[in-house]
Amino acid sequence: MTIQEKFAGLGIDNAPGQEALQKKEALDLRGEKLLGARVDFSHGDVDAHMPTPGSFDVFKEGFEEGGSQAYTPYRGRKKILDHVAASLSGFTGASIDPEENLILTPGTQGALFLAMGANIMPGDKVAIVEPDYFANRKMVEFFGGQMVPVVLEYENEGGRAGISLESLEEAFKDGVKLFLFSNPNNPVGCVYSYEEITGIAALAKKYEVTLIVDELYSRQVYPGIPYTHLCAQKEIPENLITILGPSKTESLSGFRLGAAFGTAEIIERMEKLQAIMALRCSGYNQAVFLTWFHEPDGWLEARVRAHKEIRDAVMEVIREVPGVSAKPTEGGSYLFVTIPELDVSLHQFIRIVRELADVIVTPGTEFGPQYVHQFRINFSQDKEKAAAAMKRLFAVMERYRKQ
Amino acid sequence: MTIQEKFAGLGIDNAPGQEALQKKEALDLRGEKLLGARVDFSHGDVDAHMPTPGSFDVFKEGFEEGGSQAYTPYRGRKKILDHVAASLSGFTGASIDPEENLILTPGTQGALFLAMGANIMPGDKVAIVEPDYFANRKMVEFFGGQMVPVVLEYENEGGRAGISLESLEEAFKDGVKLFLFSNPNNPVGCVYSYEEITGIAALAKKYEVTLIVDELYSRQVYPGIPYTHLCAQKEIPENLITILGPSKTESLSGFRLGAAFGTAEIIERMEKLQAIMALRCSGYNQAVFLTWFHEPDGWLEARVRAHKEIRDAVMEVIREVPGVSAKPTEGGSYLFVTIPELDVSLHQFIRIVRELADVIVTPGTEFGPQYVHQFRINFSQDKEKAAAAMKRLFAVMERYRKQ
Repeated sequence: MTIQEKFAGLGIDNAPGQEALQKKEALDLRGEKLLGARVDFSHGDVDAHMPTPGSFDVFKEGFEEGGSQAYTPYRGRKKILDHVAASLSGFTGASIDPEENLILTPGTQGALFLAMGANIMPGDKVAIVEPDYFANRKMVEFFGGQMVPVVLEYENEGGRAGISLESLEEAFKDGVKLFLFSNPNNPVGCVYSYEEITGIAALAKKYEVTLIVDELYSRQVYPGIPYTHLCAQKEIPENLITILGPSKTESLSGFRLGAAFGTAEIIERMEKLQAIMALRCSGYNQAVFLTWFHEPDGWLEARVRAHKEIRDAVMEVIREVPGVSAKPTEGGSYLFVTIPELDVSLHQFIRIVRELADVIVTPGTEFGPQYVHQFRINFSQDKEKAAAAMKRLFAVMERYRKQ
Repeated sequence: MTIQEKFAGLGIDNAPGQEALQKKEALDLRGEKLLGARVDFSHGDVDAHMPTPGSFDVFKEGFEEGGSQAYTPYRGRKKILDHVAASLSGFTGASIDPEENLILTPGTQGALFLAMGANIMPGDKVAIVEPDYFANRKMVEFFGGQMVPVVLEYENEGGRAGISLESLEEAFKDGVKLFLFSNPNNPVGCVYSYEEITGIAALAKKYEVTLIVDELYSRQVYPGIPYTHLCAQKEIPENLITILGPSKTESLSGFRLGAAFGTAEIIERMEKLQAIMALRCSGYNQAVFLTWFHEPDGWLEARVRAHKEIRDAVMEVIREVPGVSAKPTEGGSYLFVTIPELDVSLHQFIRIVRELADVIVTPGTEFGPQYVHQFRINFSQDKEKAAAAMKRLFAVMERYRKQ
């Protein structure tokens, strides 16, 4: 394999925020543009949902502190590791030693990359869920792993995410060394049940599979949905990394802050990789972690409530359109929307919607090759604008519905 | 090879800033502690040499701008790419298209990692200079390349860095695909001559070798030393990446800002890798690039002058000690100091100096396994404290000099 072939599989033209890369080929544009405020559903709108109060002030203090905040050990500065370890222990129920089990990273993407790079050897079988976060597949490819997809039957009514523990066990029996999944799931927004989580943990332990659990959205779980932290269960595998960060719910993405905690030996390898990847999570930015889990009283609840209202408003639009469906989000800010057959391909449709409705969504194929009738939206937006944008999107869609 | 074996070669215990990891084994401590202000020569002191004036204000403006600064394309925000491309074109003399030839990264470490990851396939022969930046070797190992060392005869008097173009050609003939070197060299601080640079470029072109030139310290070249940007020469190889960033001379390391420019096809692969590595250089932090090459009049000259004075003060201390030598830095803030035979190993001595003199230096072995009588200092420190610290170090050294 050449380096060109290796990278050919890592396409980013359809990744969120990269739409400017898309080739300017002729589109079958039908009808007039629909006017309305542009909405970019490829990521959350941090102007509609502002960064955690005080985050800038804490950054400023870090900057003013100077050298001791600028240059930290690769894992992060001790006092910040202490704060994050205590906060995450309290939140998840796991026991986290700040000196042994934790590393701060440039965003949760950095944490995922380090965790994958610290575990995959070329040829290793790596199981990932479909649909799941679009970078998961690409990281397996980059590190030369062999991808084993585990399909999530997310369109179920059973109060579960929809993983088949039987299929997972088959994959583990077949030699899978590493299993990565996000909970709440990205892009569906479903939450794994207690039975699913403890089942996954037990299987990983039995077959000595390393687990990476991406809990990025786990602070934003909607009322009535039970959430189970795998890392806090009695029976867990020897090799387990959990990933969180304040990029999403807390709107701190512009600072690039992530955290990974778990098995000391893996954290040590991640630190070695971080040393050659980016040295550390930006020094001054690390200070902003001090606001995490220390938000003003009621702030988190208000944010979750606001997002539930947007979800409901968008779901109301979705439910009115024949042939369109989405599972109501249980956690996080994503909806994975299924649409009917169209006269144009999914990728063409998405570009058409951008042209005619000024709405940007992410194609389902980023989350698994089979999702050619799906797109993902991040509904962390202004509520009225989001609902109006979805109406425009579906109005444009009607012009292309297959008869 | 197991993942444990792979990472065993990526030791970081002796890397700058990681000294806390060193095992607490008994040391042969001789005599009393020498009192004086602690100096950590493993990196520059940004409290002694402050970040570029205005850098914090520009960050603040970026933060206040909100979403459009928080979420940028993976390569970076357009207006910042434009600024950096124009600045680097003006500085180096190379032609840089901001849309095709440039990417912003989390620090220059990020740029190096992306450039290496976007070029090395397992088994590829990669030439690196010895001594050179300690991460170079580790990146080759991580990506499964086969390292081909090219020794720099830096102890020469000829106004050149000391690379043997004959040895380099032998290596290229032998199948080397990629050659990475830093100019000014880290750790020696020597600058490659015009003949060396054009010679390297011509050989790379002839043998179709990809070049990565780390010019991190190229703005801090001392008066009278001619500096040649390889990227601006007439005859250059098809595949060439140059790396710069405002972490060192500009003391902006706490923001983690780096830039790589060059061959469009490589930049595209680097962007794909950045998408799964850390998504982007932190959004708000990118704003700080706007201060780069736009410092107040005379600021850079004053900074270079101040560092030349510190270099001279430290060299004066070095020249007084029999058996100790260092080539005076031509560019950057490093000195690579050779010491005589001691009763203890280099690593023990470095730990002893930390204990008895409160001085931290980086062992020569980080830059090549043969440098067991060398250590590196970053003299971007308070001048008086730095000179005093070196005196304490050598006073301690005398207690261990082999008779």
